[in-house]
Amino acid sequence: MVDVQPQVSSIRGFKVAGVHSGMKKEGLLDFALIVSDAPCVAAGVFTKNRVKAAPVWLDMDRLARRPNDIRAVAINTTCANACTGKLGLENAAQTAEWVAQDHDFTPEQVLLMSTGVIGTHLPMTHIKQGVERAYSALGVDWHKAALAIMTTDTRPKLASVEVMTPNGNYTLVGISKGAGMIAPNMATMLGLIVTDAALTVEQARSALGQAVASSFNRIVVDGDMSTNDTVLLLANGKSHIAIDTAYERQQFQEALNTLCIYLAQAIVRDGEGATKFITLHITGAEDDEAARLIGHAIGTSALVKTAFFGQDANWGRIIAAAGRAGVAFNPERASLWISPGEELFEDDKGLLLFQAGVPTAYDERAAAEIMAEPAIYVSLDCGLGEGSAVIWTCDLSAEYVAINADYRS
Amino acid sequence: MVDVQPQVSSIRGFKVAGVHSGMKKEGLLDFALIVSDAPCVAAGVFTKNRVKAAPVWLDMDRLARRPNDIRAVAINTTCANACTGKLGLENAAQTAEWVAQDHDFTPEQVLLMSTGVIGTHLPMTHIKQGVERAYSALGVDWHKAALAIMTTDTRPKLASVEVMTPNGNYTLVGISKGAGMIAPNMATMLGLIVTDAALTVEQARSALGQAVASSFNRIVVDGDMSTNDTVLLLANGKSHIAIDTAYERQQFQEALNTLCIYLAQAIVRDGEGATKFITLHITGAEDDEAARLIGHAIGTSALVKTAFFGQDANWGRIIAAAGRAGVAFNPERASLWISPGEELFEDDKGLLLFQAGVPTAYDERAAAEIMAEPAIYVSLDCGLGEGSAVIWTCDLSAEYVAINADYRS
Repeated sequence: MVDVQPQVSSIRGFKVAGVHSGMKKEGLLDFALIVSDAPCVAAGVFTKNRVKAAPVWLDMDRLARRPNDIRAVAINTTCANACTGKLGLENAAQTAEWVAQDHDFTPEQVLLMSTGVIGTHLPMTHIKQGVERAYSALGVDWHKAALAIMTTDTRPKLASVEVMTPNGNYTLVGISKGAGMIAPNMATMLGLIVTDAALTVEQARSALGQAVASSFNRIVVDGDMSTNDTVLLLANGKSHIAIDTAYERQQFQEALNTLCIYLAQAIVRDGEGATKFITLHITGAEDDEAARLIGHAIGTSALVKTAFFGQDANWGRIIAAAGRAGVAFNPERASLWISPGEELFEDDKGLLLFQAGVPTAYDERAAAEIMAEPAIYVSLDCGLGEGSAVIWTCDLSAEYVAINADYRS
Repeated sequence: MVDVQPQVSSIRGFKVAGVHSGMKKEGLLDFALIVSDAPCVAAGVFTKNRVKAAPVWLDMDRLARRPNDIRAVAINTTCANACTGKLGLENAAQTAEWVAQDHDFTPEQVLLMSTGVIGTHLPMTHIKQGVERAYSALGVDWHKAALAIMTTDTRPKLASVEVMTPNGNYTLVGISKGAGMIAPNMATMLGLIVTDAALTVEQARSALGQAVASSFNRIVVDGDMSTNDTVLLLANGKSHIAIDTAYERQQFQEALNTLCIYLAQAIVRDGEGATKFITLHITGAEDDEAARLIGHAIGTSALVKTAFFGQDANWGRIIAAAGRAGVAFNPERASLWISPGEELFEDDKGLLLFQAGVPTAYDERAAAEIMAEPAIYVSLDCGLGEGSAVIWTCDLSAEYVAINADYRS
C-alpha cells in the first residue's frame, strides 16, 4: 500500500514558488514557477480537444524535441492563452524566455501551463512581474504553488508520496487544479508531478500514460473538455535511484497512480458547486471500455447528477443513462446497489435497488439515508461479461449554474 | 410555404379526449385517448435507448405486424411503465384491452405511450377510469389532449396544418410533450401526428423518418435520452386524397416537416427552466453528420448553456465545445457570429465574434445586447467543407437544477 500525504515538505533538486503577479485582484496568488537544479526527463498528457491553447502546442513541441532536458514549468491563471493565434504563441515563447533569462538554461527547457478565460491575450506586464517575483520567492512552499494555480477551485490540491527502496528513498510531489469542465479525456485541469527518481524518457511516458488513464481520465464534473488540459511529469534523478527491475517499475507505477488518483479525486471533491462525492463502479460489462462508457454516460447525465443533489435514490435515471451509453446493456441482466462512503466495506455493495429488469422492494427510508451521505458508492453489475471500470463524479447543484453563468472562462 | 396553425379545430375521422384519471393530483388532466373511425396506416419512431419502456416494446411489435390497421392511441402520464418487467408488459396489454373493449376493434389495433416515473407500475384502477372517462368525453378538444400528456411541461403543445390540393384539402394535427431529458435521438418526448391523408405504409414510415430527423432529433435540452421516446404518425385516409406523384409526396413531406419542427421547437421553448431559445447553425463542416455532431456538442455543453443563461457572449466555450465533438475542426478556419432572433434577416449573420483562430475586435456592448434577447441565432462556419446542420437548444438555468433535484422521473 502506498501512503499519500496530503502535504509536501520538500523534494531534492526542485524549488517552487506561488506569487501574486497582478493578474488576480486583491493580491491573490496567480502565478507559479517550478525549477529543477538539474535537467529533467519529462512527459506530458494533453487535451484531445482540437482547439488547443498556445502553451499546449508549445509543450507538445518541446517534449517531442527535448524530453530529457526540461528545467522549469511556469503556470499562470486568469488567462488560458487559447484562441489567441500567432500572438498567443509569441506570448508563450516570451514567457519561457523570461523564465530562462539570467539562468543556466534556455527557453527551450521551459514548459508552460495556462488556465483561465479563452480568447484574451496574456497580460505580459503581469507575466514578467510574476516571473520576477517567483524567482525572488523560490523555495519549498508547495502549498503556495498549489494556491497560485487555482481558478474556481475553493482549496489547493497537493500531495506527496515517499517510496522506500533498498537503495534509499525517492519522492513524488504533485499539485493539481480543476473545478469545472472536468471529464474523462481531461478538462480544464492542470496537474504537475515531480519526482527525484531517475527515469528514462520511455519510463516517464509510459508511467504517466498509465497513471492518467486510471486517475485524471476517470473523473467527471460536467462532461466538458478544455483547450488547456495538461498533466506533466518531471523526473530530475536527484535521488540517484533508477527504476530498473520489474518490481521497481511496479513500485514506481503504484506510487504515481496513487498520487494521481488522490489529485484527481481532489478535483471531483472540489467540483463547482459539488455537494457529494460519487463513485460509479461498473462491472459485468462486455469489456473494460464498455464499462467506462457506461460509467461516463451515468457520470455526465444532468438528470442523474441533479437527482444526487436532490438526495433522490433515482435508480431509474441511472439505468436509463446506462441504456444510452452506446454499448451493450440489458436491464434484465443488470443489478444496481448503493452504499454510503467512498469504498465498499468487505465487498458489501449495500442496498440492492434494481435487479433483473425491475426495482426491488427496497426500503425507501434506508435508500434516503444513504443518499443523504456526502459520499455514495454506486455499484452497477451489467451481467454481460468481465469488463469493469471506476468513475468518480459529483452532483450537479444550483451553485454550479450560478458559478458558470457568472464566470467568463 | 406551409402555414402552421398553433391550434386545432377538428380533423375528419379522429376523435380525441384528455381527462383526469386520478393519477395526477387536484383533478389535473393526465390521460389522453385518440380514436380513429377507420383503420389507420401507422408508423413510429422510438427511443434508441437500450432500456425501453413496455409501451415502446408493445408499439414496435404492433407496428411491425399490423402497420395498416391501427385504430387508437392511449397516452398516460405520471408513470413511464419502464423497468417494470413482465408485469409492465401485462399492464400495457391490459390497457389496450380496455381501450378496445366494447368497441369495433381489437386490442392489437391499439398503440400506447407513457411518460413519467421509471420503475413504478401503472396504477391500473386509474388507467381503467381514464379509459372510461375518455370515451365519455370523446370529441374534438385537442387542446385538452395536449394538456393531458404534459409532465413538467408548463404549456400544451399542439398545432395543425391544412394542405390544399386540386383534389381537395387534407389536414395534419399534432401534439407533443417534452421539457427535460431532450436530446437528438429523442428523449422523454412524445409526439403524435394524425392526418386524414391516404398514405401507404411505406410512405408513412419514410415521411415520418425524414420529418423526425429534421425536427425532434434536432433539439437538445439536457442531452439525456429517455426510455419512452415515441413519435407516432397515423393516417386514416378519410380525406380520400392519396399521395401519388412526386409533387404530392413533396407537399406532404413539407407539411409534416413543418408541423414536426413546430412541435419540436415548442419543446425547446418549454425546456425545463429555459429562458432562451437558441438556434445553432453549423456550416462548412466536413459533412452534414460532422455538422450535426458539432452542433450537438455545443448544444449539450453545460458550460455553453450556463453562459447563455448568464447572457455572456462566451464564444470561447462554443469554440472549445466544437473542438471536442470528435470530428474535424480547426479554429484557424472557423468563424462565429451571433444575431438576435430565431432566424437571420436577409442572411445577415450578425456580429462576428471569432475568426481565423482569434476573437475579433467586436463591440462587447453590442454582444451583450444580443445576449440579452430571448432568442439568439448562432452561426458557426467551420471553413472545411459543405456540411451543415441546424440544432435548436435552450440555456441551462438554476431552475433546471431545482426542477430535476425535486422531480422523481
